[in-house]
Amino acid sequence: MKLKAVLLNCTLKRSPAVSNTQALMDIVIGHLQSLDVECETLRVVDYNIPFGVESDLGEGDEWPQILEKILAADILIVGMSIWFGVRCSVAQMVIERLDGTYDSTNDVGQYPMYNKVGGVVVTGNEDGAHACAETTLFNLSHLGFTIPPNADTYWVGDAGPGPSFIDAGGETHPYTLKTAGWMAHNVVHLARILKESPIPPEGNTVPKPAAAAASDMRGREKRMASPVSESA
Amino acid sequence: MKLKAVLLNCTLKRSPAVSNTQALMDIVIGHLQSLDVECETLRVVDYNIPFGVESDLGEGDEWPQILEKILAADILIVGMSIWFGVRCSVAQMVIERLDGTYDSTNDVGQYPMYNKVGGVVVTGNEDGAHACAETTLFNLSHLGFTIPPNADTYWVGDAGPGPSFIDAGGETHPYTLKTAGWMAHNVVHLARILKESPIPPEGNTVPKPAAAAASDMRGREKRMASPVSESA
Amino acid sequence: MKLKAVLLNCTLKRSPAVSNTQALMDIVIGHLQSLDVECETLRVVDYNIPFGVESDLGEGDEWPQILEKILAADILIVGMSIWFGVRCSVAQMVIERLDGTYDSTNDVGQYPMYNKVGGVVVTGNEDGAHACAETTLFNLSHLGFTIPPNADTYWVGDAGPGPSFIDAGGETHPYTLKTAGWMAHNVVHLARILKESPIPPEGNTVPKPAAAAASDMRGREKRMASPVSESA
Amino acid sequence: MKLKAVLLNCTLKRSPAVSNTQALMDIVIGHLQSLDVECETLRVVDYNIPFGVESDLGEGDEWPQILEKILAADILIVGMSIWFGVRCSVAQMVIERLDGTYDSTNDVGQYPMYNKVGGVVVTGNEDGAHACAETTLFNLSHLGFTIPPNADTYWVGDAGPGPSFIDAGGETHPYTLKTAGWMAHNVVHLARILKESPIPPEGNTVPKPAAAAASDMRGREKRMASPVSESA
Repeated sequence: MKLKAVLLNCTLKRSPAVSNTQALMDIVIGHLQSLDVECETLRVVDYNIPFGVESDLGEGDEWPQILEKILAADILIVGMSIWFGVRCSVAQMVIERLDGTYDSTNDVGQYPMYNKVGGVVVTGNEDGAHACAETTLFNLSHLGFTIPPNADTYWVGDAGPGPSFIDAGGETHPYTLKTAGWMAHNVVHLARILKESPIPPEGNTVPKPAAAAASDMRGREKRMASPVSESA
Repeated sequence: MKLKAVLLNCTLKRSPAVSNTQALMDIVIGHLQSLDVECETLRVVDYNIPFGVESDLGEGDEWPQILEKILAADILIVGMSIWFGVRCSVAQMVIERLDGTYDSTNDVGQYPMYNKVGGVVVTGNEDGAHACAETTLFNLSHLGFTIPPNADTYWVGDAGPGPSFIDAGGETHPYTLKTAGWMAHNVVHLARILKESPIPPEGNTVPKPAAAAASDMRGREKRMASPVSESA
Repeated sequence: MKLKAVLLNCTLKRSPAVSNTQALMDIVIGHLQSLDVECETLRVVDYNIPFGVESDLGEGDEWPQILEKILAADILIVGMSIWFGVRCSVAQMVIERLDGTYDSTNDVGQYPMYNKVGGVVVTGNEDGAHACAETTLFNLSHLGFTIPPNADTYWVGDAGPGPSFIDAGGETHPYTLKTAGWMAHNVVHLARILKESPIPPEGNTVPKPAAAAASDMRGREKRMASPVSESA
Repeated sequence: MKLKAVLLNCTLKRSPAVSNTQALMDIVIGHLQSLDVECETLRVVDYNIPFGVESDLGEGDEWPQILEKILAADILIVGMSIWFGVRCSVAQMVIERLDGTYDSTNDVGQYPMYNKVGGVVVTGNEDGAHACAETTLFNLSHLGFTIPPNADTYWVGDAGPGPSFIDAGGETHPYTLKTAGWMAHNVVHLARILKESPIPPEGNTVPKPAAAAASDMRGREKRMASPVSESA
């Protein structure tokens, strides 16, 4: 059965501006397609995504259509740029919107992202790729994604400001190319294994009464916080 | 001479939703006012702030009016909520927009934020306050702010989801109250000292030719990246 | 076939001092044993482990015997305490020593930790569990471990100093108990799946010439850096 | 009055191995000496420093002699290498040992590190300098240090393994040289200002009864945890 991957480009730049992150994501997509994975890329900033932590904030919110694609996919790759040493605001916003999935479960009572696989692509002029990748992969694992070995690929230049991925010739950088291939192969390997042998709903389902209570509490809090929900 | 403080509330929630972060910021403001500091609070999400890294992105961008207030202030306090263990997207967006100040200098050739003092306020249901504070204070120090001792105050509950600052009675939490007072006093002490004895422009000015070159490079990159500029 | 788990307690305290981290690790061990996993716990600080980044530093180095156990196990759980908002020094030292495994491969040419599963246990008086878990799980994924969903469990108190896990009654904390069960079940599920369907050596093997070159370079550098090797 | 600086090199490598971090620290020392600052460098790993969080762990503990030098200095510079994207274990160990200073105060009742200034030097083959600097500068600010603008200097290469600072010619890297000068000048400027106008003991002293209570609690916990004290 053909695997599906959704790739979210969290660059700060709207289309049609050239995105360095997309250039590295395209290398990953090349690998995924060679492994017979159906790929769909979305540039998040081109959509109207309000800040918040629910799956549907109403009023023109275009997150639900992105979430629907993620729910239908086997693999989620989050691409992002580094700003000030950490992941950019659009990537953080995407993770915050995924918080809404904690309020529902899959058919067997686990978080909806169980049995999906996550990976990360990072580009920046310099320093910060580990910080971006570690925070994002950890957040994905909390949401239910499985993280394969070497689930990230990144390019950064040396210390200080400098040219970006494309101008710097990052597309031929041996380490970046190697890890792009590793991550693509490993997300596919794990997605295949999980499709054949899904994680059984044993000891990892959302406790019903607690879930209901939590949901009520969250719901209450979110209602209090309307129009945009947030607890803090 | 009276000191001025600008406090940016980076909650995800638009007015008039109740903001837990604001509740803790108000405690800090109480201290600052008792120390004769003029305070102005802005809730960032109520403004139209596009993603980007320049000081003016045109077309309805309301960041310039916020930046103008920061430039006129002696103290900047950034308030934020924790989401997924790190600072929220709105706080990250604010820091990204401050990147634009690297393209200019103060009268003596230092970054424009030199001789200003920074502090941080964090609230969250649980875990992540150190991460929010450390990233933000470090970013502020890179931008030119001085960071006094104990320049942060925060409240978080214990492990896992739970009530937020106001509902949890955080406003009477001894550690949070103590550190709110410490940070308020220390940002004021440092701001006063720096007003009397500004950091001299020795060994810390933006090198002119390099600055021009950097500016040109950045400018080129930003133009390439238009409409929203970003290097990665 | 029976699975084996190695659990490293990275507390700063030597035996026989009571370790709060061990108390939470014991809850995880209870789950693992009920799932028929053979468990072995080591308190790292009781061994003589010099600082460094090679698998054997000679002269009384007891890391090789710990590494041997990790290599023979299917699951590695790293337990640690939080100090100053991040993972403690002993946990960092353990990760540094695992750097030495990059210099070898398994039988099919992947990093030696491929097809093993990683998890994390964190305790602290307050704030920092996400930082500890995210850094450690990411490092493990780079080394070759697969990270299942919800691969961490932690306990922290609310803001500021306070009692530790045992004194605070953390052993009955619903969120911590729930996540301890989730992580135990999920590391086992993934270890079983990977035992049946190991990640094939396709697109993720250490490139031979590059590996040799890298190994040479690292070797050279390590020799230069003797007696304790480190590149920076 | 002549300022004193203590510089701690937290490399993993014992003397006489060449330390890349020291090479960058030496550049900073050159600036400090030109500004008439008396400098003393210690390579921490050459001393016998047990893991722990008290100022004196007895039994051959050599931390007290290092702490004494820090207490007598106006400026503390912490040099460190990056391993796995974060600060190395020796740097983390140093920060943990500084936890012991929370149990005492200066003459006016503030933390002993008040009116001292902190800075950071980082080297690594690649990525992670921001993470090292931000965690360390934040920890120092919590301990009582003031953090000037641009209080860090670092060198890293581009993505992936590669040569270290010295071999890579980092000693002529424009960004690293510029920031080394900035940080040296700014720690000196701030140390001078704070010597002339110390932060007054207003709103930032350790509350006596609470301090005694906290000290008792910590003491109790530390005694429980003996021989090496730690709370988690």
